[in-house]
Amino acid sequence: MAITILRLGHRLVRDQRLTTHVFLAARALGAREGYYTGQRDQQLERSLEKAAERWGGSFRVQHLESPGSLLREWKGKVAHLSVYGLPFQQALPALRKARSLLVVVGGEKVPPEIYQRADWNLAVSTQPHSEVAVLAILLYELRGRTFPSLRGKLQVIPQERGKKVISLRPKK
Amino acid sequence: MAITILRLGHRLVRDQRLTTHVFLAARALGAREGYYTGQRDQQLERSLEKAAERWGGSFRVQHLESPGSLLREWKGKVAHLSVYGLPFQQALPALRKARSLLVVVGGEKVPPEIYQRADWNLAVSTQPHSEVAVLAILLYELRGRTFPSLRGKLQVIPQERGKKVISLRPKK
Repeated sequence: MAITILRLGHRLVRDQRLTTHVFLAARALGAREGYYTGQRDQQLERSLEKAAERWGGSFRVQHLESPGSLLREWKGKVAHLSVYGLPFQQALPALRKARSLLVVVGGEKVPPEIYQRADWNLAVSTQPHSEVAVLAILLYELRGRTFPSLRGKLQVIPQERGKKVISLRPKK
Repeated sequence: MAITILRLGHRLVRDQRLTTHVFLAARALGAREGYYTGQRDQQLERSLEKAAERWGGSFRVQHLESPGSLLREWKGKVAHLSVYGLPFQQALPALRKARSLLVVVGGEKVPPEIYQRADWNLAVSTQPHSEVAVLAILLYELRGRTFPSLRGKLQVIPQERGKKVISLRPKK
């Protein structure tokens, strides 16, 4: 299954770290690529590029002027995450069957077309909390609660205490 | 199991929304209370109070000058979330047995004492991503992949499309 993330309505400064976390979590949890609307943010794009370069994989993010063309041309399924949606658990079997899935993560204001276009509007609990948390739990379940193996220049070697990072292809 | 969250090294402005998301996710996923070190942030505290007032439960956050006294006096178990730690899955059976668990979520710099004091240093994947995502997945698994029922003034009624929120005790 190929998972793509669309983050709506990014605002410079105010959303910078949250949107970065949305995409870093998406990458670590197996998404393939990301798009965002709202304000173009080259620092955001660079930080994701740097993550892929250092830590592996090919996750990239691209800015879109509006979500319309992506949504119209999208051939796969669309899941929109929203606290107002149905419990995500009931859609998991169907979601897991999708060959390619676009997961839409809202910003401050979500246009009504998104609710209409989505194959599923899904909530992770009926409490308002965090798009990062909601996306993380959805992707974790979509992958059957496993994490992808990504191999980059740096690799963490898990430790009981302290830190160990090895450099697989050390810089000259 | 009573779960308490300790967020380290909060910085005004820069961390405001991320720390808010850490605590909103913690609350929605069943944590009982939160502490944070770093800069005191009354806006953060108020936004969590407002969430509990509107959406239920009694989750509150308190500022601490340093984590030392809480960690020394803490009678329960301590799990520190860090990308350098051991895979969290292997600690889940032991974690679930804890009566009270303090989950420590790092900031920019984590003092070495935290790694020493923690009963577990745990990672959610070996990839760097987001403390919000990491905490969400841990809490989701700790509760056996269920969400707590919180009842406040407002309640979301899940919908296939659109939004429905009811007011249980309308304001006069």
